[in-house]
Amino acid sequence: VVIARADSTAVRLPPVAAPGPALARRVEGLESTAIRNILALLASEEVIHFGGGIPAAEAFDVSGFRDAFQAVLDPHDGSGRRALQYGLVEGDVALREAIAERVGRRGIEATAADVFVTSGSQQALDLICAACIDEGDVILVERPSYLAGLQRFALAQADVVSVPCDEEGIDPDALEDAVRRRSPKLVYLVPTFQNPTGSTLPLERRRAVARLAERYGFWVVEDDPYGELRFRGDPVPALSGYAPAHAVYLSSFSKTIAPGLRVGWMVAPAGLLDVARVVKQSKDIHTSAVAQAAIAHYLAAGRLDGHVRYLCDVYRERQEAMSALLAELLPDGARWTEPDGGMFVWVELPEGWMAQQLLDAAIPRGVAFVPGQPFFADTVSEETLRLSYSNHAPGRIREGLARLAGAFEAVVGGARA
Amino acid sequence: VVIARADSTAVRLPPVAAPGPALARRVEGLESTAIRNILALLASEEVIHFGGGIPAAEAFDVSGFRDAFQAVLDPHDGSGRRALQYGLVEGDVALREAIAERVGRRGIEATAADVFVTSGSQQALDLICAACIDEGDVILVERPSYLAGLQRFALAQADVVSVPCDEEGIDPDALEDAVRRRSPKLVYLVPTFQNPTGSTLPLERRRAVARLAERYGFWVVEDDPYGELRFRGDPVPALSGYAPAHAVYLSSFSKTIAPGLRVGWMVAPAGLLDVARVVKQSKDIHTSAVAQAAIAHYLAAGRLDGHVRYLCDVYRERQEAMSALLAELLPDGARWTEPDGGMFVWVELPEGWMAQQLLDAAIPRGVAFVPGQPFFADTVSEETLRLSYSNHAPGRIREGLARLAGAFEAVVGGARA
Repeated sequence: VVIARADSTAVRLPPVAAPGPALARRVEGLESTAIRNILALLASEEVIHFGGGIPAAEAFDVSGFRDAFQAVLDPHDGSGRRALQYGLVEGDVALREAIAERVGRRGIEATAADVFVTSGSQQALDLICAACIDEGDVILVERPSYLAGLQRFALAQADVVSVPCDEEGIDPDALEDAVRRRSPKLVYLVPTFQNPTGSTLPLERRRAVARLAERYGFWVVEDDPYGELRFRGDPVPALSGYAPAHAVYLSSFSKTIAPGLRVGWMVAPAGLLDVARVVKQSKDIHTSAVAQAAIAHYLAAGRLDGHVRYLCDVYRERQEAMSALLAELLPDGARWTEPDGGMFVWVELPEGWMAQQLLDAAIPRGVAFVPGQPFFADTVSEETLRLSYSNHAPGRIREGLARLAGAFEAVVGGARA
Repeated sequence: VVIARADSTAVRLPPVAAPGPALARRVEGLESTAIRNILALLASEEVIHFGGGIPAAEAFDVSGFRDAFQAVLDPHDGSGRRALQYGLVEGDVALREAIAERVGRRGIEATAADVFVTSGSQQALDLICAACIDEGDVILVERPSYLAGLQRFALAQADVVSVPCDEEGIDPDALEDAVRRRSPKLVYLVPTFQNPTGSTLPLERRRAVARLAERYGFWVVEDDPYGELRFRGDPVPALSGYAPAHAVYLSSFSKTIAPGLRVGWMVAPAGLLDVARVVKQSKDIHTSAVAQAAIAHYLAAGRLDGHVRYLCDVYRERQEAMSALLAELLPDGARWTEPDGGMFVWVELPEGWMAQQLLDAAIPRGVAFVPGQPFFADTVSEETLRLSYSNHAPGRIREGLARLAGAFEAVVGGARA
């Protein structure tokens, strides 16, 4: 076991240094969050990292995509030229048609005209912020929430306020209370296999949130990258279907196909998509046309459904491997989630525990995770942490948790010393 | 010849309609510019469009890229998995090393650490605005300037001010005068085969601009997508090499390889790249890893230099075909540029002519171009237009200019009537 470099832990970096000419106010004191640093640790084979929401690379359908790129880059018909030429800002028509069909299964009525292709669903957040958020606008989020969403909202200089959640997700009464007090322009939710908690919002709560959006007139942004990765229980329809004039639905092929393609999408009311089209044109013109063409080809060949079923088997086995050991690993009084899909387990250690202290003991033992801190928009619960099971085979999960047991013992021993 | 739909002309669209919940102030009255509408017209085979800076699709090395994607998506080693997995925010290391070597030929000393991969060079403008520009900051641009740059600066709510240019580009004395009066935070230039004029800034002027950046402490952003597409005359080194602590150099593979890959880059001081890394993470995490891997493979195979030489031959022939007809096509008193590279000819018609009126007469005759209006940050010269020769073979250029001659005659006839 090699001791990782101190600067590659999953903690925040210090504020970046200013160069010569002046920078914008919005980046003053901006901090780098965990994702990049997680990737740095991932580069070290010796560290078993339960950090990032990193898909299982060994489960990628590499040959399926080699074939798809081969097919769309045919030099003998016009398809190769089209895939390499400038394309439509809102994305490839064939791909948008296939996505419209796919979101229909999540309970959202859409045609290709309602679908807008983005450079990963992260870019949908960028476009939504540019289109909807002025400095000082209130955004309500779950407590805890997706860290790179929070980072984008910080860049928007929004006033981000967290709303209490329980094991089923956001509490609609608490949300209504916050809406009345703070008049949000936007509410951001990951209702299905939430990041970081893994929890899924029940149907009645989805309907309640949708009614609030319509009643109070805010945007509800439903981020759903994990919705198809259900390995247990019955699907719950997307929230967006219940408030079509107020909802923006985001999802991505990053978790079902591969993140390196950087293709996601949003489904939103036409007025918002009209603005998004102008905004995206000035941001990156359009998303990689060749990646879109390859995905459209793969979908048309009917290969994704079987692949997603396979992924669900892979992730179920991994979640079960992790879950089986948590009861004996975690200290008395700890709580953790048992997700029915997605990639994440959320752990709340008993009062007095500090996740950062545990991480400091974990890294020298060759295991890492993300402390909960960057997932909180405002008040932080220092005793929380996120474990992802997606990126390691069951045996390696067991080995990583054994190492983590050593870290728990070391912290307890140190506290006693 | 089919008459194009009225909504697909290269003129600005009306302000977009607002949807249910509120939008941000920055998008109020936002207008769509020419690029998207150009693409709509391109879809019509009947219209010969001299509009967008669209590369020659028939010159793409489709089979070279089919081979490159095939190679990087090898299912038998780890490369395919790596190309499909999350990657570094700042881009693939092998690609950045190859880019560093390449910008060295343009006179910029750089290592991989100085290179930051972006989703097309348009995204570099997005990142620079997010990192450097607050609402109301002054940005100086050439008169005329790149329209999608102006569009991004408008989204930044910057105060964009144009500086007079002559046939050699921006006048350093006029620039210094504007700098003293307006204290810009940033000066944006396309010094080589400028968009829209095709002009190239001489070396002495580059040095003078660099000295001003250092003296007055502004960012100078050098957008250089066409620099390698020189088909005549001697190369002029990049401006950025003369003010390395103040310059941001942007370029792209869109014009040398293919725009559909959406891979560009910037070279900038470390402090700015540190901020860009945090900002890009919240915007699209990173640029398509598989597209980066394919380009890195293509560069490592040594295939780009020969391809660029081929492209230069193609574009020289097209520029010559266009140039040969302009003297007889254009009315007495018109001025036009004779670029030594890139894609664009800029036309100034004699006083009293309106480019929009000419376009209205051109489209029913099956030919189109971009009126100069969207290239002006402030005061507009209505008698200007941009012609691109990049996307049509010489015969089609001649046919398009013959149709345009009909439009000129119709406008003259109409004015006489």
